[in-house]
Amino acid sequence: MLRVGFAQLEPKIMEAETNLAGAEEAIASARESNVDILVLPELANSGYVFESGDEVEAMSEVIPDGPFSRILQRGSSSGMMIVSGICERFGHVFSNSAAAFCDGEHAITYRKVHLFDRENHWFEAGDSKPPVFDYRDARFGLMVCFDWIFPEMARILAIDGAQIILHPANLVLPYCQEAMITRSIENRVFTLTSNRVGLERGIQFSGKSQVTSPKGEVLVRANSSGTSIDWVDIDLSLADDKMITKRNHVLKDRKPEMYGRLIDPS
Amino acid sequence: MLRVGFAQLEPKIMEAETNLAGAEEAIASARESNVDILVLPELANSGYVFESGDEVEAMSEVIPDGPFSRILQRGSSSGMMIVSGICERFGHVFSNSAAAFCDGEHAITYRKVHLFDRENHWFEAGDSKPPVFDYRDARFGLMVCFDWIFPEMARILAIDGAQIILHPANLVLPYCQEAMITRSIENRVFTLTSNRVGLERGIQFSGKSQVTSPKGEVLVRANSSGTSIDWVDIDLSLADDKMITKRNHVLKDRKPEMYGRLIDPS
Repeated sequence: MLRVGFAQLEPKIMEAETNLAGAEEAIASARESNVDILVLPELANSGYVFESGDEVEAMSEVIPDGPFSRILQRGSSSGMMIVSGICERFGHVFSNSAAAFCDGEHAITYRKVHLFDRENHWFEAGDSKPPVFDYRDARFGLMVCFDWIFPEMARILAIDGAQIILHPANLVLPYCQEAMITRSIENRVFTLTSNRVGLERGIQFSGKSQVTSPKGEVLVRANSSGTSIDWVDIDLSLADDKMITKRNHVLKDRKPEMYGRLIDPS
Repeated sequence: MLRVGFAQLEPKIMEAETNLAGAEEAIASARESNVDILVLPELANSGYVFESGDEVEAMSEVIPDGPFSRILQRGSSSGMMIVSGICERFGHVFSNSAAAFCDGEHAITYRKVHLFDRENHWFEAGDSKPPVFDYRDARFGLMVCFDWIFPEMARILAIDGAQIILHPANLVLPYCQEAMITRSIENRVFTLTSNRVGLERGIQFSGKSQVTSPKGEVLVRANSSGTSIDWVDIDLSLADDKMITKRNHVLKDRKPEMYGRLIDPS
């Protein structure tokens, strides 16, 4: 059993110190509650609604040496995994990233592949498929926010063995939370979406962070407004049962030989 | 504008004449209501819960020469498209098929690729990707029932230009109707699921046949029990707008170069 949770936060645009303090507080609270796996929202260090490249640069940091990363790394040192969205700088470019810290170590960074709306102005899209990695005998996949609308992403994570998809988000469109139920069912995986809340420069975020089961049950869901920390104790190995009927395995029943159009749509 | 509808029926296992009469009545009723595109459920000629290969053989027919096909073909001759699930015999094998009849002609047959549960005993899985075809300046895609759980299927249909996915079904699991909303959103297509109702040899079917829009709206949905004919007038070209934001095209934003695992999961 692992205690898997999210911190539904309200990062403030251009207020790095506030966001650092918010993350520290959330981590301390999660640790007191013996949460094993804690997921923070997308761009939790920076806020979301940038108005210039200068703002992006000012709020970005190097992973894992930046101040926000160090908070997450230190927070994870007492035997936790912490995943968070981070406005990342690497070289001369900026990325909408998610990083995982396990037991005081930086484990992995994923750079968001499918950028949403004006993110295309600020960020370079990632050029690697979403990662799957191990921690405490379980397998975790990462994707970020708008990646949800591309069923290919959750599918690749499931094919690669993810038992749960950790999904930092800053959701604006109203569809994702219900769609993640479908992502769970079609892949027989757990999903955890950690969303932000609040109104930022006219953009409203939708909260309702949630954890779903491989059977499409919503195990816990936060409110649409208000910050909160919630968790659920789950046996991630339940996601290894891919049989949706006695005779149907949701992955082995796929017919890849018929799916060529997915990678050659020309 | 096309008037697109479904006949939510209750086919009876081993009662070919009853099923023929039910289809004839539904077609007559749809024609009176000036329905342009009518979809009947999966295996509408045969019923669903077979107990032996002999039963499958007894209820199967050749497309388009069998009696059920002829009813559909004749019904379509006054300027309609009629799609139905048919228990098909071809050569020495049996297929869970969907056939489309347009303006009195047999247009296309699709043989279900992803067989559900005990269907694996009775039917040979289709070996061709799901088809997209034109009628009255619109583009239609076909899939059958359990194909819904494989997001690859709706995706291929959308990539191939389907504006609406016509989806005969005999649904047993409770997930599909909500999942089809996600299929609509992620592909920006209309979907029409024509489901059956009733209890057959201990198996309960879930009704709630529906039409969804590219924005994930449920335009019409039937009850969970009771036969009915429903329709909605839609401009299928709305499905050509793939922009979910000003900057995001749900198909062109895909990154096929990163999706190799979908067809090479070994």
